[in-house]
Amino acid sequence: MQLELFSVGTELLLGEIVDTNAAYLADKLSQLGINCFYKTTVGDNIARLAGALDIALRRADGVLTTGGLGPTQDDITAAAIAQVTELPLEEDPASVEHIRRIALQRQRDRGSAAQSAEASRTAAGERMKGLLKQARLPRGATPIPNPVGTAPGFILRTPYRGGDPKTIISLPGPPGEMKPMFEQTVAPYLAERVAEEGPAVLVSHHLRFADIGESQIETELRDLITTQGNPTIAPLAKPAEVHLRLAARAATREEAERLIAPVEAEIRNRLGAHLYGVDSDTLETVVGRLLRQTGRTLAVAESCTGGLIGHRLTNVPGSSEYLLASLVTYGNRAKQDLLGVTAETLSAHGAVSEETAGAMAEGVRRVCGADLGLSVTGIAGPGGATPEKPVGLTYLGLAHAGGTVVERRRLRGDRSMIKERAAQLALYLLYRHLKGLPGVES
Amino acid sequence: MQLELFSVGTELLLGEIVDTNAAYLADKLSQLGINCFYKTTVGDNIARLAGALDIALRRADGVLTTGGLGPTQDDITAAAIAQVTELPLEEDPASVEHIRRIALQRQRDRGSAAQSAEASRTAAGERMKGLLKQARLPRGATPIPNPVGTAPGFILRTPYRGGDPKTIISLPGPPGEMKPMFEQTVAPYLAERVAEEGPAVLVSHHLRFADIGESQIETELRDLITTQGNPTIAPLAKPAEVHLRLAARAATREEAERLIAPVEAEIRNRLGAHLYGVDSDTLETVVGRLLRQTGRTLAVAESCTGGLIGHRLTNVPGSSEYLLASLVTYGNRAKQDLLGVTAETLSAHGAVSEETAGAMAEGVRRVCGADLGLSVTGIAGPGGATPEKPVGLTYLGLAHAGGTVVERRRLRGDRSMIKERAAQLALYLLYRHLKGLPGVES
Repeated sequence: MQLELFSVGTELLLGEIVDTNAAYLADKLSQLGINCFYKTTVGDNIARLAGALDIALRRADGVLTTGGLGPTQDDITAAAIAQVTELPLEEDPASVEHIRRIALQRQRDRGSAAQSAEASRTAAGERMKGLLKQARLPRGATPIPNPVGTAPGFILRTPYRGGDPKTIISLPGPPGEMKPMFEQTVAPYLAERVAEEGPAVLVSHHLRFADIGESQIETELRDLITTQGNPTIAPLAKPAEVHLRLAARAATREEAERLIAPVEAEIRNRLGAHLYGVDSDTLETVVGRLLRQTGRTLAVAESCTGGLIGHRLTNVPGSSEYLLASLVTYGNRAKQDLLGVTAETLSAHGAVSEETAGAMAEGVRRVCGADLGLSVTGIAGPGGATPEKPVGLTYLGLAHAGGTVVERRRLRGDRSMIKERAAQLALYLLYRHLKGLPGVES
Repeated sequence: MQLELFSVGTELLLGEIVDTNAAYLADKLSQLGINCFYKTTVGDNIARLAGALDIALRRADGVLTTGGLGPTQDDITAAAIAQVTELPLEEDPASVEHIRRIALQRQRDRGSAAQSAEASRTAAGERMKGLLKQARLPRGATPIPNPVGTAPGFILRTPYRGGDPKTIISLPGPPGEMKPMFEQTVAPYLAERVAEEGPAVLVSHHLRFADIGESQIETELRDLITTQGNPTIAPLAKPAEVHLRLAARAATREEAERLIAPVEAEIRNRLGAHLYGVDSDTLETVVGRLLRQTGRTLAVAESCTGGLIGHRLTNVPGSSEYLLASLVTYGNRAKQDLLGVTAETLSAHGAVSEETAGAMAEGVRRVCGADLGLSVTGIAGPGGATPEKPVGLTYLGLAHAGGTVVERRRLRGDRSMIKERAAQLALYLLYRHLKGLPGVES
């Protein structure tokens, strides 16, 4: 089965928002074993959207659109689909009911606002007219319930231009609405359709690496990459790490996994310490798991990363079990007052130094009563550099019951990239400690 | 002038990376006054890319592609363009020279790696073969220098299928290479081409709002939106804020600005306090400017936001001038030990309460010796909620020389959305204080 993705919205063509829906859906389709060869973005223009849909419906088995299902006049996806399939738009009673219920609830939420009853009624009436437009679906379409917002999606299966039947799936654009609708309704529907077509699944795994570049990985795995077949092997450079995608096609998931296993084992063997996780793992979820398993607590002292390490660690639900605190000691005085870094250390070696990084890690461990103290201090730029201490110079420290290790790094990139890389390397230092891997000085 | 955007790469169709290039380029084209009606993503497949390019070159004045210019066999953009334009690929001597120079430099950077001289020479030779493939450009193309990496881009202007000349611009995919190449070479080239076509510029401004929803903005501005002409008015919902785009077309930039000014003034008049900035402003840059102007210092105490406020504040270069520290006191003990929140406050009211938020703001202000103390405490979920304290309940505190204010909010969304919204509202509370706007209890 082959579907094309459509993202509808002038805001996407003006670059006002990044299209994260497309990446999310492409990933999901790939996991379902559905091929996606083209992804098209079109603005809020019926004629252009209908024209692009026509091209897609001629070359693929169907389309999946996001966006353009809202209440305003700009929202033209349902109308364009009706036009290209030559079907009328008809009001779906269940969707009308759902929209009325949500609108009422929102009105109650707003109840306390200081508005005259009459003005409130007029505004509500206008709003309702727009909302009800969303209940008009192409004839024969099955509505997709929206558990969060008012706009329903729909699935339409209809013969196209007198030829084979094509599948048209439309979802609203806001990711908070689109994702649950895809997961609850569209994914099961597509899985069933794929199953009808016969046995062919694509299984892919992402191996995630820290502190190693794409070109070094390619060099270490050159023979495997050159002779790749099934599974395929593809390195992917991410902002502060590299992924390796292993993807196998087979009749069943089990068979695909059997094809991947020996290749993954060989890669693990060659690049071991750098391979910290697979698929949805992140360094913060992996170190979180290790901290929880060993019952240890962590405190962090951040300087140049400015809170990013704490932010990443606390993105993991339940992180309050092991993360006691992260102190962003941005100024020198905060380093002294909060972490007990001495004025002598700061004046003799500077805030960005091996000595300060070590004292920060030890200080935050002591002050917070944590098992482990992690620290970062560096020059994120663009200001603050000297000939001896260039932009990107970063020290990472880890204090534990047995002592303190400090690593020195020279990071490249702009301010935000240096912050990201420094946070990544600090978490990687913690990871190696928790795994009992040897420290690397570089 | 009308260009279509192409993003090339199977990783995009598999959803492995989010296409941020497309948003960046769409924004830049729009600023240049170039229309972009379609954006297409195609995988690493010559036939499909050539087919899609053909469709685009028939309906637009040209295309701008990113991706697929690298050294591996997967990189097929130049070949697909050569195929569709029926031009041969030829080696560009300047690009060969550039690639050799960069490769040599990288080899020196790697000098210290423990590898035998012979193995190193063989690997380098293999690498060089791939790199030199990047110097092969369609005949007649002008190379675009790459200041960061090895792959040159190119600009090609050629009659298409015996018809009008079309413009084909190709850039590499990594944003760190693509962006400087676009800015240094492509933007000036396109600006000149647009100028040749005659006077027509599109000027757009984004007004940025905090703590107000899209539907409320639409209701307040309904008359302006319904009767919009030149400029157009479009509300855009972002993760934790709303933007309003005002875009005017005119013969000159000045004239376009004159069309926008009165509309912007009227909107400012109606929605004043919520409109915190324009265009590239963010709450962190705006509060940073206000803190610097008034010579005040800030310390932050974060709980549920986990470091995100510190991260955002320190994304601003020079933030060390006013940000003393941000203490992520995730556990209760950290709140007591580091901020001096009393055990009585915590046990009587809980960590997520008006009293704790106030004590955190006052504590961090006192401990860090700052002029202003900002605090957040809330329940980001999914765990930690009780019937009285649901997920999303958040208190924001601000302590200053004249006293302490605390606001209570109920935020919606998942864990990461609640963190984002809480950080945004905390910065907005600080913003209102710095601007002398009245506090809002809700």
